[in-house]
This record gives sequence, structure tokens and C-alpha cells, in this order.
Amino acid sequence: MNQIKIFSPATVANVSCGFDCLGFAVNDLGDTMTFTKTSTKEVKITDIKGANLPLEADKNVASAVALLMLEKHSADFGLEISIQKGYSPGSGLGSSAASAAGAAFAVNELLGKPFSQLELTKFAMYGEKVACGSEIADNVAAALYGGFILVQQYEPLAIVKIPVPEELMLVAIHPQVKVRTKDARDVLPENIPLADAVTQWANVGGLISGLYSQNFEVIANSLQDIVVEPARKHLIPHFDLVKEAAVNAGALNAGISGSGPTIFALCKGEENAKKVYHAIEDTYTDKGIDFTMVYSKINTEGVKILEQN
Amino acid sequence: MNQIKIFSPATVANVSCGFDCLGFAVNDLGDTMTFTKTSTKEVKITDIKGANLPLEADKNVASAVALLMLEKHSADFGLEISIQKGYSPGSGLGSSAASAAGAAFAVNELLGKPFSQLELTKFAMYGEKVACGSEIADNVAAALYGGFILVQQYEPLAIVKIPVPEELMLVAIHPQVKVRTKDARDVLPENIPLADAVTQWANVGGLISGLYSQNFEVIANSLQDIVVEPARKHLIPHFDLVKEAAVNAGALNAGISGSGPTIFALCKGEENAKKVYHAIEDTYTDKGIDFTMVYSKINTEGVKILEQN
Repeated sequence: MNQIKIFSPATVANVSCGFDCLGFAVNDLGDTMTFTKTSTKEVKITDIKGANLPLEADKNVASAVALLMLEKHSADFGLEISIQKGYSPGSGLGSSAASAAGAAFAVNELLGKPFSQLELTKFAMYGEKVACGSEIADNVAAALYGGFILVQQYEPLAIVKIPVPEELMLVAIHPQVKVRTKDARDVLPENIPLADAVTQWANVGGLISGLYSQNFEVIANSLQDIVVEPARKHLIPHFDLVKEAAVNAGALNAGISGSGPTIFALCKGEENAKKVYHAIEDTYTDKGIDFTMVYSKINTEGVKILEQN
Repeated sequence: MNQIKIFSPATVANVSCGFDCLGFAVNDLGDTMTFTKTSTKEVKITDIKGANLPLEADKNVASAVALLMLEKHSADFGLEISIQKGYSPGSGLGSSAASAAGAAFAVNELLGKPFSQLELTKFAMYGEKVACGSEIADNVAAALYGGFILVQQYEPLAIVKIPVPEELMLVAIHPQVKVRTKDARDVLPENIPLADAVTQWANVGGLISGLYSQNFEVIANSLQDIVVEPARKHLIPHFDLVKEAAVNAGALNAGISGSGPTIFALCKGEENAKKVYHAIEDTYTDKGIDFTMVYSKINTEGVKILEQN
């Protein structure tokens, strides 16, 4: 194989009660990336469409991951990478993770698949470190594995793939405002009441159970974040309004995607998702803030090959 | 039906990471209770074998639950209750819950099953209040539903039954020491670091996932309590020694049952459970503390009818 073109999905991390451990992949939003072998042993970003991102090989997430993998495998070739961003960086939908996971997956294919999915996750986590300074796993694991994933532990890394009910749908709104990662981190409480922690972990248990048993009532009851959302929501304009509109329109619930500003809602079935889409859209149309919206099934396969030759 | 004899199982609550929300029922340990209709509209405890518990109708857990249910349903009969305790109160294996759940189940049968399982759980929670002052649900729900249960939320009460892998086995040791509920409560931290809470809820998610997927590696990885066990374990003599012996003998992991002093270990398969049983027994034989031990499958059916006529 000399060339591979892949699709790497956007991802929602910090899924309500599952702060810092639960993420899922979006079916209809993501990046398209093409990786072409070269004989020079260099890695070059040839072009990036759709976003203003670094082209330098060690600063761009995709090339940084590719470089590391080629080096680890003592590859005798280099790469040219072309990236078509499908959505904006800074949205809270795992933009750097899509690039990192896409690169990990594609380079593994070009190398003849020497690495396991868990190893690819670790390579992609290095990409997250290049992008934001820390090796977080939830977005990249969701992009690589597809579906819902749980980062059960970091040392050693353990990822658990959770089944997704067929009818589960995502609606998300990305208000065009900037939430700085530092601000989103700074508002987090260092300590939380044990009673709140118990409420939160009972909900994590409920959510995982609801996903396995396809029990939407349990999913809806459990999709709550009483710890991080109250601390962060003021960073996102009209968060409460959007959430209320989503729930009133029948969404299972809504929350902050990643560290925002995207707000996601989960819904049962396409018909309900359409209602929720319009209800959320209505709340934002007169607010003087630009926004984009997503309506999608949950991606269950992760990064996928579009073309290869 | 004039008389019913039932078996109500012992239960393990606070299952590792699932403090205050996760419990399971024990197959081979519990109380046998007989309920006989009388025409006097009174509820009487006729005898209690195997433990020294109150005989007064409003103070005994079983009769208190029965009185409440007969009143709610405006029953035209009374009851005589005979109790054969299968294990000691104060063990941390849900002794009051077994009586409360057994009474709720049996009285419902004698009334012609007017109440749902969730309503029975609430009646049994009243029994817990009579016994210890608070309406905790995890032990009574585990006894009534059987298997693993998650108290997903209290307001309104929502119980989720989690499937149990066939091979899962319990080994437990009850050292004959007293852990006062007040002491067990007093050592709990009021606040915990957010980072610890995340570790704990990722483990709850992993444990629930492992139970559904019958993945014993995930169950073992997730069966950890970094919040409550470190605060409570010094109340139980030789806790670390027992846990280490259990894990070295191949147990998935071990932890405190309820608020102790019973220490439970979960194991995969009978052969391993036997090894773990002997390893735990060995650690305690020369310690000068009396103890009893349990070796059992997980009970998956909850309270069950032994005889009726």
C-alpha cells in the first residue's frame, strides 16, 4: 500500500457524569486525511483545508504522531499528509484527537498493521500532548474504537468499548465563541463533596448499564453531571437555555462536549433528534452569536478507510 | 395463602468502587422466615433463632415492615412471624436488610402481590430506618432483586439490576469484632479530590461493563476503592493481610462488605474460590480472633419462597 485516505470522526468527551473517562464518536462529522508514502524518510504536511493549523512536522498533531510511529517501527519511508478538516478546532469536539487518531490509524495501515488498537491509542495520546500538553485518552480512544468508550484506567492504559443502542442520536450546537482550555481547567473544583461523588458514580454506573441494556429511561436518568457542568456552564453563553430547550423537546439530556463551547444532546430516534435540533436552533437564532449545528448517529466503527492503493 | 416460608439472602453492599450504590446478594447465606396469617390484626414476632434481636413489633425490622404494609393495604388480618437468622447481625452482610426484604416480599405474597418490586424496596428501606436510622437501599434492593443491583438514584428511587457472570463466586470472612456504624461513618472524608472521584467513577463504569460483558479482566481491574476503603480499613483487623492473601491466591480483588467488619473477595470459578478461601483462612488462624467464613455463588433470584400453604 502506497497511499491511504481515511475518515477520522469528531468525538464528544466528558459525557455528562463521565467526566475525564467517557467519550463517543460522531458519525457524520470528522476529518478526511490522505497519507502518501515517500522515499525521503521525512514527514511533510502538504496542505490543510478548513482550518489554520501548524504545518511544521513536529508541531502538527498528525505529523508528530506519524513521525513517532515511523521512528518506533524503524520505517524506511517518509510521508506526505494532506488534511481536510471537517469542523473547527476549539469546538470541544476533539479536533486534535481526530487528527491524532487518524494519523495513528493510517500510519499503522501503511506499516502493515504492526500495532494494536491500544498501542495506536497511546500514539494518538502523544498527539494530544503535542496539541494541548496532556496525554488525554478519551477523545482519541473514541475516535479509534468508535462507539462509546470508557477510559477505565491510565496506568496501565485500559480502554473499554461500550455498546451503543441503534436508535441513539446526537444533536450538537457549536456557538462560535472561544473557551480557553486554561479557563475550563481553572473553574474545576479541586475537591468535591463525597455525597456528590457518589451521585456522580451511581450515574456513571447507570449510564453504562443503560447503554448495554438499551434502556433509554435509565440512560436519560443517568445522563447528569452535578460536578463539572455547574462549574463550567457559565463559560458557554445560554447553556441553560439550550439544555432546557433540548429536554423540553424530548432529548434524553444535554451537556457540555469536552470543555466546550459545543453543547451536545442525546436523543432516542431520528424524529426526536429533529425536534431537538430545531428547538436548540430556535434558542440561538436571535442571540447575535454565530453557530453551527450537527445532527448525527453515533459512529460505531471509529476511523475508517475511504480509499487505498 | 395462609402461611409462607421464605429465604432472604445476605448481601454485600458498598462493592469496592460502588460505595453507597452497588450491592449483590449471597446465594448460600441468609435468613429463613415464616409468616402466618392471624385474625387478630396484630403483628407478633413469635420467635427468633440465631440472634438476639428485639421482639417488640415496632422495633423488630421484620414486624415493623409488615405492620406498615398491612396498614397501607388496609389488610383484615394480622401476622405471626418466626425468624431463623442464618448469620450474625453486625457482620456487614446486610442482616437487617435480609429481615426487611424478607418481610416485604412475604407480606406482599400474603396480600396477593399488590406491590411492585420498587414499592417493596421502599417498604424494606423503612425497615432499614428502624434498624439503623437511615433509609439506605443497596442491601435491601440486592436482597429483593438478587444479583448485582445499582441504586442509580434516590429521588425518585431507581434500581437497576445488573447481570452476573455465572462463574462469579464470593468468599468472605467475618472476624468477630465490632465495627460501630458511627465509627465507620465518622472516618469517611467529607470531601474528596476530584481526581480521585474520576478514578472511582471510571472504575464503577468498568465494573458495570465487566459484569455485562463477562470480562473478568475488566472486573478485576475495576474492583478498586480508592476513596472509602483507605479511610475504613484500619477499623478491621488485618484487612491488608487478608486482601493481599486473596489477591495472591488469584481473587479478582477484595474489599470491605458494607461498613465491615466482613471482608469479601470475588473470584472467577469454584476452583479459584476454594484457593482464596484457604488463603484467607490461613491469614486469620493464628490471630486470636474468632471468625466465620462464607463461600458462595452470587444469588441471582433474590428472596425466594421455600413453602406456602
